[in-house]
Amino acid sequence: MALRFVKMHGIGNDYIYISGFDQPIPDDPSALAVRIADRHFGVGGDGLILVLPPEPGSEADAVMRMFNADGSEGGMCGNGIRCVAKFLYDSGYVRAPRIRVKTKGAGVLSLDLEIDPASDRVRRVRVEMGAPILRASAIPTTLPGDPPLDYPIAVTYDGKTITYRGTAVSMGNPHLVMFVEDVASIDLERIGPLLERHEAFPDRVNVHVAQVDAPDVARMRTWERGSGITLACGTGACAVLVAGVLTGRTARAARIHLPGGALDLEWPRDGETVIMTGPAVTVFEGVWDESRV
Amino acid sequence: MALRFVKMHGIGNDYIYISGFDQPIPDDPSALAVRIADRHFGVGGDGLILVLPPEPGSEADAVMRMFNADGSEGGMCGNGIRCVAKFLYDSGYVRAPRIRVKTKGAGVLSLDLEIDPASDRVRRVRVEMGAPILRASAIPTTLPGDPPLDYPIAVTYDGKTITYRGTAVSMGNPHLVMFVEDVASIDLERIGPLLERHEAFPDRVNVHVAQVDAPDVARMRTWERGSGITLACGTGACAVLVAGVLTGRTARAARIHLPGGALDLEWPRDGETVIMTGPAVTVFEGVWDESRV
Repeated sequence: MALRFVKMHGIGNDYIYISGFDQPIPDDPSALAVRIADRHFGVGGDGLILVLPPEPGSEADAVMRMFNADGSEGGMCGNGIRCVAKFLYDSGYVRAPRIRVKTKGAGVLSLDLEIDPASDRVRRVRVEMGAPILRASAIPTTLPGDPPLDYPIAVTYDGKTITYRGTAVSMGNPHLVMFVEDVASIDLERIGPLLERHEAFPDRVNVHVAQVDAPDVARMRTWERGSGITLACGTGACAVLVAGVLTGRTARAARIHLPGGALDLEWPRDGETVIMTGPAVTVFEGVWDESRV
Repeated sequence: MALRFVKMHGIGNDYIYISGFDQPIPDDPSALAVRIADRHFGVGGDGLILVLPPEPGSEADAVMRMFNADGSEGGMCGNGIRCVAKFLYDSGYVRAPRIRVKTKGAGVLSLDLEIDPASDRVRRVRVEMGAPILRASAIPTTLPGDPPLDYPIAVTYDGKTITYRGTAVSMGNPHLVMFVEDVASIDLERIGPLLERHEAFPDRVNVHVAQVDAPDVARMRTWERGSGITLACGTGACAVLVAGVLTGRTARAARIHLPGGALDLEWPRDGETVIMTGPAVTVFEGVWDESRV
């Protein structure tokens, strides 16, 4: 069976997008994800995202199902859902400036499109990412405070102990944000895995170092739970802004530079949603046909 | 400009193949290779291979130009040239069971096709890889012997020194083959870079560990010069067979298992060509259009 697909990325977070609007979808998308996301024997990507028609009567315009490269199903991906919106608009499945997509992990999210007038294609997408979770037991972390703010946290390697100060927040997944003078000088490959599995985080944690260049400009690097160093982490960028606001380091709106590109983040009010705006890029279109010799 | 391409692999060694038979080729293929071979922002692959029409009057059916992911032009790739033959036959550019391809590094090579009768598509390709170069100064290595056979070579790390026994041969590029009891137990990530830059190899060297399971069956792992651990190294598999024959460990024909798959190697006579037969696989077809938003 030949499957048409589009490869897209959001600041380097790359998935294979397959529409179920006009072609049959394989019975076992998890197994397909493992094969198609392989970077040598398949198309290659961080995973597979199926873009499916909504159930009858649904308030959503489409359903997103994401599968990681290991076949596990994910709940949501901030960089991925922007590409879902571009895929739906550019391919003509949904022709509206606001698109509602049902996710497994975060319910129905509204996506506002920035459309390039010359090409009538989507350039950037604005997503309401939900309110941060600040209660320590819900993040979850055993560090004190709701949330823990600039709390000393020590790591030991090569016989020496270094103490960082970390702020923990959840955006549906747990994050630890450590503000530093210079993100480039941090040995994230060494401290990342140690902090990911630090005893204070029972579900492990995504580890970020961030550097504030101005109240509305920061840069960050990420050690992602289960993945290691990655080019981009959308929920992590939200966590950096929330941590920056709560510790008085940033304004409520900032551009955050990640290794794969920049995101604009805004957290208008305590207790309300964080808003993320960023690019969505089509890399190429292709056809995947496993029946072929 | 939209470019049609095919992604193919030979036992995991994957390139993007673009035909110049029926579409214009960009002026700067080196710069294109850097962009298109990127595994997050491009199609992703070990590099780009252009398959071009022969010059008028040439004895070759096609010309292969290969560019590594860093944009540098390569001379030859045993896993790549098998895919070139499949690409030429399956796409209809050359419909013959023997195809001659001009390479930059190894002149015109003849490729014999194993064609699946049901699909009329190429399954495996047989390539004459040329005669091994055994003179130490031409490999090049300062180790004694033409070639050096099972010569003691020491590496020191973490304060301990381990002595391996290595056989050096060139297949147009230098190889060091070390036969061991169990390839899986070797810490190739540590010893590979040390041996690659060992003082006995002025042009550096590709480092292989090999394990002989039977005179006609071996397995190997590779640390590739400039690339690190790779799934497959075609010239390295030739070098393992030659080293196996010269040290009395293997027959003149053997199946060699690499991490990405198996190759059948044969070295019928001293001083003559090594023959490699292996699979070539089409992964998917696509269109690359950098002018698109």
